[in-house]
Amino acid sequence: MPEGTTGKSAKVTVSAADLRGLVAGIFAARGSRAADAAAVADALVWANLRGVDSHGVSRVPRYLELFDKGESVADAVPTVERPRAAIAIVDAHAAPGPVAMNRAADEAIAGARECGIGWASVRGTVHTGAIGYYASRIADAGMAAVGVVAGVPNMAYAGAKGAAVATSPLAVAVPAGKHELVLLDMATAVMALGRIAQLKAAGKELPPGVALTADGEPTTDPALAKVPTPVGGAKGAGMSLVFEMLASGLTANPIVPSYHAGSKEGRRHRQNGFLLAIDVSAFLPLEEFTGTIDETVDAIKSLPPAAGTSEILVPGERGRRTATERAADGIPLGPKVWRELTEIATTLDVRVPSPLS
Amino acid sequence: MPEGTTGKSAKVTVSAADLRGLVAGIFAARGSRAADAAAVADALVWANLRGVDSHGVSRVPRYLELFDKGESVADAVPTVERPRAAIAIVDAHAAPGPVAMNRAADEAIAGARECGIGWASVRGTVHTGAIGYYASRIADAGMAAVGVVAGVPNMAYAGAKGAAVATSPLAVAVPAGKHELVLLDMATAVMALGRIAQLKAAGKELPPGVALTADGEPTTDPALAKVPTPVGGAKGAGMSLVFEMLASGLTANPIVPSYHAGSKEGRRHRQNGFLLAIDVSAFLPLEEFTGTIDETVDAIKSLPPAAGTSEILVPGERGRRTATERAADGIPLGPKVWRELTEIATTLDVRVPSPLS
Repeated sequence: MPEGTTGKSAKVTVSAADLRGLVAGIFAARGSRAADAAAVADALVWANLRGVDSHGVSRVPRYLELFDKGESVADAVPTVERPRAAIAIVDAHAAPGPVAMNRAADEAIAGARECGIGWASVRGTVHTGAIGYYASRIADAGMAAVGVVAGVPNMAYAGAKGAAVATSPLAVAVPAGKHELVLLDMATAVMALGRIAQLKAAGKELPPGVALTADGEPTTDPALAKVPTPVGGAKGAGMSLVFEMLASGLTANPIVPSYHAGSKEGRRHRQNGFLLAIDVSAFLPLEEFTGTIDETVDAIKSLPPAAGTSEILVPGERGRRTATERAADGIPLGPKVWRELTEIATTLDVRVPSPLS
Repeated sequence: MPEGTTGKSAKVTVSAADLRGLVAGIFAARGSRAADAAAVADALVWANLRGVDSHGVSRVPRYLELFDKGESVADAVPTVERPRAAIAIVDAHAAPGPVAMNRAADEAIAGARECGIGWASVRGTVHTGAIGYYASRIADAGMAAVGVVAGVPNMAYAGAKGAAVATSPLAVAVPAGKHELVLLDMATAVMALGRIAQLKAAGKELPPGVALTADGEPTTDPALAKVPTPVGGAKGAGMSLVFEMLASGLTANPIVPSYHAGSKEGRRHRQNGFLLAIDVSAFLPLEEFTGTIDETVDAIKSLPPAAGTSEILVPGERGRRTATERAADGIPLGPKVWRELTEIATTLDVRVPSPLS
C-alpha cells in the first residue's frame, strides 16, 4: 500500500461483482457448494450495496470461525418438512443463514401460490445477514413479505439489567408498480449495534437513549455503554420477545431461555427465523394493488416537508439510492475488512480482485 | 348524585357484567342483532377491564354518531370471500369493528386449521377497539396470532408536517402453558392519543418526543402539540405505512392516499385490518410449544432487575392484572363517560344498571 494511504480511514473500493466473486470463492474453498457460496456472497454484498455494511462482507471471518468451531457447516443441506399446505419448516442443520433463508423464501412462495399465503420457519441457522434481502426476493415474485429473525440476546429489556433479548429484526416488503418496492427492514433496537460499536471505538459520546450500563442505567458514555436499548422501551423489547417466541418456539429451538440458563451451548451463536409470503394476486389483480401502493408512496412523498427536510423518504428508498451509487462506483470497504478478506483469500488460494481504488 | 361526589374526577364504578349489558342494550336498541350487540359490548368492556379505557365504552357515543351519519351500519352483515384455502377477505359493509373482526378471527382460525396458517383481511369497518382482543381470541383456540389495523392518518411521519399516517396498532398473541398468554398490543405512536389528550386537557407539559407542532417541530407544550410522533421515528412511521399498505392495499380500500387527496370521503372515519392465525399444533405438539413459552417467560421474569424495578413484566401481564382487579371490584368510569352512556340508554329506553359505587 503506497505511503499516504495507510491512514486508519483509508477505504478500499471494490466492484460489487468482484466482491461477490471473492466471497463466493472463499465459501467454495471452505466447502460450500458453488450455488450456496454464490447465495451467501449475493446476500452479503446486497447489504453492502445498500449501505448496511454491518451485515455485509465484514461478516465473512465470523462465518469461517463458526465453520472452524463446527457451529456452522459450509455444505449443510437444509431439509424441509411441509406438515400442512401453507407451512414449511426448514431445518438448516447449521447451514449459513442465506442458504437456509433462501430455501425458506422459496417454500413460503410455494405455499402462497397454492394457499394464498405461505409461511416458512427456519430452525438452527447462523448469521442471516440483512433480512430485507429475503423479503425482497419474495416481493420480486409479486408477493408481499414479512420476515423475522431471532438470535442470541444482545439487547436490553424494560426493567432488566444486561442483555435480555436479541435485536431481532422485522422486515416487510411490499411490491409497487412504477415505484420500487417498499422495504422496511428494522432492528428492534434504537440504534444498530454496529453504529454503537463505531461510536464506542471512536470514544464519542452516544446520543441519549441508545444504550444502558451493566447496571441497567441509561448512559451516553461510550466506555460505560454495555447494552443497546430497545426501540420505544417496552414496545421494542416486547416485539423482540414475541419474535423469539414465534421464530424459536415454532421450531422447537428456544434461544432466550437456554441463553439465560447460562450453559455454553445456550450461549452459542445461532438463529431461527420465519418468512411469510402473501400472494397479492389471490386477493386482487396485482396491478390494482401495485397501483394503490404507488398512490400511497406518492401521497407520502408529496406531504409538506417539516423544517429542515428537503425530501420525504419511504422505507427502502435510501438503501436503494445507495445501491444505485455503489453498483456504479463500487463498494467502499474499511481497510480492516479488506485486509481480512484478502488474507483469507490468499490462504485459501482464492484470487483477490483488484480494487477500483 | 349526592353532594361531595360531583367533583370533576369522581369516578363511577360499574361491574363488567352490568357494563356489558348496558352497552349491548344500547347497540341492540340501535338496530344491531343481539349477538352482534353482545360482541361489541364484550370487545369494549374487555379494553376497560384491562385498563385501556381509551378503547373501551367511552367509544359508544362515537359509534352511534357513525350510525346517524350512515358511516357505520348497526345491522350490517359482513360477507366473506375465500379466494384460496388459507385466505379470506371479510367485507364489513361498515359493520362495527368487533362484528367484522370477530368474523375475521373465525376465518383466520378456519384457514389455519386446514393449511397451518390462516389470514383474514377486513375491508371497510369502523372502530375496531383494542386489537389485542381479536388476537387473544385466536390464542384461546391454541393458535398464535398477529393482528394489524389501519385507519385515517392521525400521526406524524419522519420529515413531514401534520398527520401523515395512522397510529396503526400491531398485536401479537402467543399461547402459554402455566402462564397466561403473552399479548403484545401496541400502537405505532410513542404515546397513546388518549394519554396525550388527557395531558393536553390538564394543560400539563408533555414528555419530550411524543408530539409535534403543526409545523412539524418537536414540542412539549400541550397547547402547541398537534400530532403524535411515531415510536422510533422512521421505524414506527415505516411500520404504520407498511401496515396501511398490507391492510388497505389487499382489500382494495386505500386510506392514506384518499385522505391526503383531501376529499370529504377520503377523510371519513374507516378502518381496514388483517388477522393471521398460526396453528401451533401443525408445527409441533402444542404442549411442547407452550412449555417453551413458559420457559421463556420464566427466563425473562428471573433476570436481575435494573435499579428501581421491582418486577419484570412480559407483554400483556399488566393488563391482565388490571383485568383481574376490575373483574372483582368493577370498572371505574369517568363521570362524563357514565353520564353519556346513561343519557343514551335513557333515550333508547335501555335499563341503566346501578353502579357499584
